[in-house]
Amino acid sequence: MISKNRIKYIESLQRKKIRDEEKLYVVEGDKIVREFLASGAMVNSLVAKPEFISSLPPGLLKNVKEVEEISYNELKQVSSLKTPHNALAILDMPDRKLDVSILGNELTVALDFIQDPGNLGTIIRAAGWFGIKNIICSPDCVDIYNPKVVQASMGAMLHTDVYYSDLEKLFIFASDNEIPIFGTLLEGEPIYTRELDKQGIILLGNESKGVSERLKRYITDPLMIPRFSKAGPGIDSLNVGMAASVVFSEFRRR
Amino acid sequence: MISKNRIKYIESLQRKKIRDEEKLYVVEGDKIVREFLASGAMVNSLVAKPEFISSLPPGLLKNVKEVEEISYNELKQVSSLKTPHNALAILDMPDRKLDVSILGNELTVALDFIQDPGNLGTIIRAAGWFGIKNIICSPDCVDIYNPKVVQASMGAMLHTDVYYSDLEKLFIFASDNEIPIFGTLLEGEPIYTRELDKQGIILLGNESKGVSERLKRYITDPLMIPRFSKAGPGIDSLNVGMAASVVFSEFRRR
Repeated sequence: MISKNRIKYIESLQRKKIRDEEKLYVVEGDKIVREFLASGAMVNSLVAKPEFISSLPPGLLKNVKEVEEISYNELKQVSSLKTPHNALAILDMPDRKLDVSILGNELTVALDFIQDPGNLGTIIRAAGWFGIKNIICSPDCVDIYNPKVVQASMGAMLHTDVYYSDLEKLFIFASDNEIPIFGTLLEGEPIYTRELDKQGIILLGNESKGVSERLKRYITDPLMIPRFSKAGPGIDSLNVGMAASVVFSEFRRR
Repeated sequence: MISKNRIKYIESLQRKKIRDEEKLYVVEGDKIVREFLASGAMVNSLVAKPEFISSLPPGLLKNVKEVEEISYNELKQVSSLKTPHNALAILDMPDRKLDVSILGNELTVALDFIQDPGNLGTIIRAAGWFGIKNIICSPDCVDIYNPKVVQASMGAMLHTDVYYSDLEKLFIFASDNEIPIFGTLLEGEPIYTRELDKQGIILLGNESKGVSERLKRYITDPLMIPRFSKAGPGIDSLNVGMAASVVFSEFRRR
């Protein structure tokens, strides 16, 4: 069985500092672990209850470097969930370098200071569904390997490449190369009737502050999702995950 | 200041049984409490730190029956949040009777066994934004007055009427009256190219099981949100709150 030191080590991966040092992150939950195994991604270690391991078709273990058995109580100790499932997987962080030449060829999402892990996970999930491969986060966005982000993304992390990068530099490059920057702003134009390109950057802003002033001036196409409520203004809002779903859907349906 | 018994009483409202007996529910958090006060809704009691109360414009208290001062430690005791804010409001549950004659005149949402409070709150929020007034939940949906639902709906509860009702009976009535029932199903037709009415029922199903078999046969217009991911099938999914946002947006943009 698993050693006490190893348990402490896995638990320590809940901290960003340790994850960044070790270049490892943790995926938790039976369904999502199965999806990661099935995806063919290299898995550094599968840590699971014996029943879970024996329930797997042998083919699913071919990309797993190490299989570690763990008891429920030990799993509880290393888990970031209130009620742990039966398995977790430890994965190597991919070492990604952003290739800016993609920006002119496809749709890319840029996120300005997204703070809530659930929102980042939801946006990744929506990007996965709507076939958007690249997401570029400002350095002050929540960490993609935060357990709550991984949880909320529900496996969509597997085919989405997330980068952290200075958005202003990126937007200067985009401006110089006439790549459109679509931004969701309260004062934008209704998205339903705007012409939308098949290439460009979709910028989504912070949950409460929206897009920062510093970045606003680079937006070439300000967009908004019209509100249909008959109630007084100011009460309704869409959260950024819901807004992302609608915006991605609008870009894709055309 | 507030008595110990009163604190226990407010805390007890976290339980559905007690809420239903007392016909009261609790709204928590500074922003949402301010929104409820500003909306003109009758507030049974405002329970808040003295600083919060004195910061309110006097006009906001005109529909408040009782104002109770509370300390931070006491608030912590009655709060359903890990980190409580400065105020909560206790409200009377509205006594709503569903008038089925509305079904033929506008868009209504029907929810089949939505279990996650965050999802129900998100759907209410999306309905608020897209101007859908009535939501009919199957009796096995999570309770609308569950603190997490109230939190996630972010004040949209104020102009959305939520009912709990047997959906099969409702759908029989709709069928008899030729009211369309739009259902989101994996095997539905792409929503982008379907004709969508301005009236009818939009049915959303359970998070993992989708729409139950019993209800499926009443669907007159099966819909789906096309998936644009190039990755293999089966990994991607949209959660029901994201799907609701896209579906409501599609109905409204036409």
